[in-house]
Amino acid sequence: MTQGVILLAHGSGGKLSHDLVEQLFLRHFTSPALLNLDDSAILEIQNPSPEGDLCKSRISVPHASGGQNARLAFTTDSYVVSPLFFPGGDIGKLAVCGTVNDLSMSGARPLWLSAGFIIEEGLPLADLERVAASMAATAEQAGVQIVTGDTKVVDRGSADRLFINTAGVGLLRPGVEIGGDRARPGDAVLLSGTIGDHGMTIMTHREGLRFDSPLASDCAPLNGLVAVLLAAVPGMVHCLRDPTRGGLATTLNELAGRSRAGIAIDETAVPVSEAVRAACELLGLDPLYVANEGKLVAIVAPEAAEAALAALRAHEYGRQAAIVGQVTGTHLGRVVLRTALGARRVVDMLTGEQLPRIC
Amino acid sequence: MTQGVILLAHGSGGKLSHDLVEQLFLRHFTSPALLNLDDSAILEIQNPSPEGDLCKSRISVPHASGGQNARLAFTTDSYVVSPLFFPGGDIGKLAVCGTVNDLSMSGARPLWLSAGFIIEEGLPLADLERVAASMAATAEQAGVQIVTGDTKVVDRGSADRLFINTAGVGLLRPGVEIGGDRARPGDAVLLSGTIGDHGMTIMTHREGLRFDSPLASDCAPLNGLVAVLLAAVPGMVHCLRDPTRGGLATTLNELAGRSRAGIAIDETAVPVSEAVRAACELLGLDPLYVANEGKLVAIVAPEAAEAALAALRAHEYGRQAAIVGQVTGTHLGRVVLRTALGARRVVDMLTGEQLPRIC
Repeated sequence: MTQGVILLAHGSGGKLSHDLVEQLFLRHFTSPALLNLDDSAILEIQNPSPEGDLCKSRISVPHASGGQNARLAFTTDSYVVSPLFFPGGDIGKLAVCGTVNDLSMSGARPLWLSAGFIIEEGLPLADLERVAASMAATAEQAGVQIVTGDTKVVDRGSADRLFINTAGVGLLRPGVEIGGDRARPGDAVLLSGTIGDHGMTIMTHREGLRFDSPLASDCAPLNGLVAVLLAAVPGMVHCLRDPTRGGLATTLNELAGRSRAGIAIDETAVPVSEAVRAACELLGLDPLYVANEGKLVAIVAPEAAEAALAALRAHEYGRQAAIVGQVTGTHLGRVVLRTALGARRVVDMLTGEQLPRIC
Repeated sequence: MTQGVILLAHGSGGKLSHDLVEQLFLRHFTSPALLNLDDSAILEIQNPSPEGDLCKSRISVPHASGGQNARLAFTTDSYVVSPLFFPGGDIGKLAVCGTVNDLSMSGARPLWLSAGFIIEEGLPLADLERVAASMAATAEQAGVQIVTGDTKVVDRGSADRLFINTAGVGLLRPGVEIGGDRARPGDAVLLSGTIGDHGMTIMTHREGLRFDSPLASDCAPLNGLVAVLLAAVPGMVHCLRDPTRGGLATTLNELAGRSRAGIAIDETAVPVSEAVRAACELLGLDPLYVANEGKLVAIVAPEAAEAALAALRAHEYGRQAAIVGQVTGTHLGRVVLRTALGARRVVDMLTGEQLPRIC
């Protein structure tokens, strides 16, 4: 791994990204919480004793009962999207939603965000102001607080206008146990709405293409949607993921791999808007690999599938939710798609890079 | 503030950085924890009740007693230093130390870090590997864990090799109350060692200058030093800061301003190495404004000054600690330097930008 150079595809969220994490970072960073490879690290803190010199702390045993100790979720993402402003959102809204969503997918209630800005010399202050206002509005909508921050400025040409990192801290709901390795044969696979909206918006906006139907990013904070889902079918949600970089196909492959199960998806059940379908056809792309920023995949116990679907559909961010497939005890670690024509094909992770700087 | 563009000096850590935070970010981000403007946000979590639907949480009342609830410290910094590798450290060591130190300055025990990488296409994998190994070694030395991460890749020319963001979570020691607004007239001002080492190392390394005495960054994790200090004089440490961007002068101005007190410093008491002094003279710089990455300023109750000094000096990162001045009830909000010649002059925050990308 120490030969060669970083390629754009290392940032795709697909196969090369996974290789980079597993073959480089995980050889050095060996925390049990990190090795879990979920969207957030889950950390347990023990109550400080008033007399104690130092608070004790430990990484929680995966899937241990919550007990009396608070369990924290902690996550981070950097945002390098280009353009900074696009239909349906901007880099600031994306930076808040992305981290809120990563926390939410662990079953945590997101509470606090940090914001780190790397700014290229010459960025108009009006642009920065617009981004900050958008972050504040999105944080308010999601019910989280931006509590700490940092600003660095680099010389012209050393960055492209503005990059934002957000990290987030949330509190796990008591008793909730969600993880990428918990899918079981028979479980239902739910998707909260149409796929490909964010990615196709960025691509067409950047390429200057125009389509009859307006495309807009689906960028949205999903903590409210997760809250109603978990309340509707308590204990029945096994996995939650937001299919961002690499799209639905890559996310399902991660879940199949982590759970050592198969996943079978019905292509006709996967919602895709007409505008996204048209844009994908024009550009020769498969919506299964296109990034989303306001959708979730939920894998739930079979007996809870209908109630989970009803809960998602009752929420503004889940109106077009659908049951798109199920977990199987065959073709372990693989995702199989039943196409509209009745054929079956294996759907891999994204390989290569579809488009850099999608988020 | 919405006219104009971002200048390099907005990232200096000095006056323009403060203006940007106060006139732009704080108009939008209004969390009480953020408004406090300490190095870390202090957050209080209440115990989850096993039956509760959601955990309650609130921002702690500043300086309220710790009570039974855990108090978290949360902070973030991005690192854009150039060059990536320099005598005494590298961007990875800096990224771990910087966030460990920000948590430590709140009186917290640092526990968990996130790491977000923004990588320019074409970065040699060997460089990334070297940085990851350095981060892992530094984290181990500091006793913290890197528990979550993210990697983004941007196209050639859209970033300069590698930027790293780290955010950190720590637990406040019970009963510890430290803040930038707690300096009181009569308090002693302690400095843990020589100033200017990091900044002058980067400047001379980047400019290709060579000096007889080798310069090396002081980059170090200070959580151990803070632990022995707090144990030696419990309840007596009022303020802790690490004088990074903007140097000692800017940090002292922040503390004087926040505490509405004066600070008087004795120039001859401030430790400066011969190598730094020579480099500063050559480049026409004042070491008071040069960045440090392994030093702290402690403001302590007068009766604890000698014990605090002894505790610092007994630690490997505080061998050259000194009492450099005191807090006064006059010239409120200002820092006054008594020079080697006996003159007195007001020392302002850094204005303008000394050198971009020092950290």
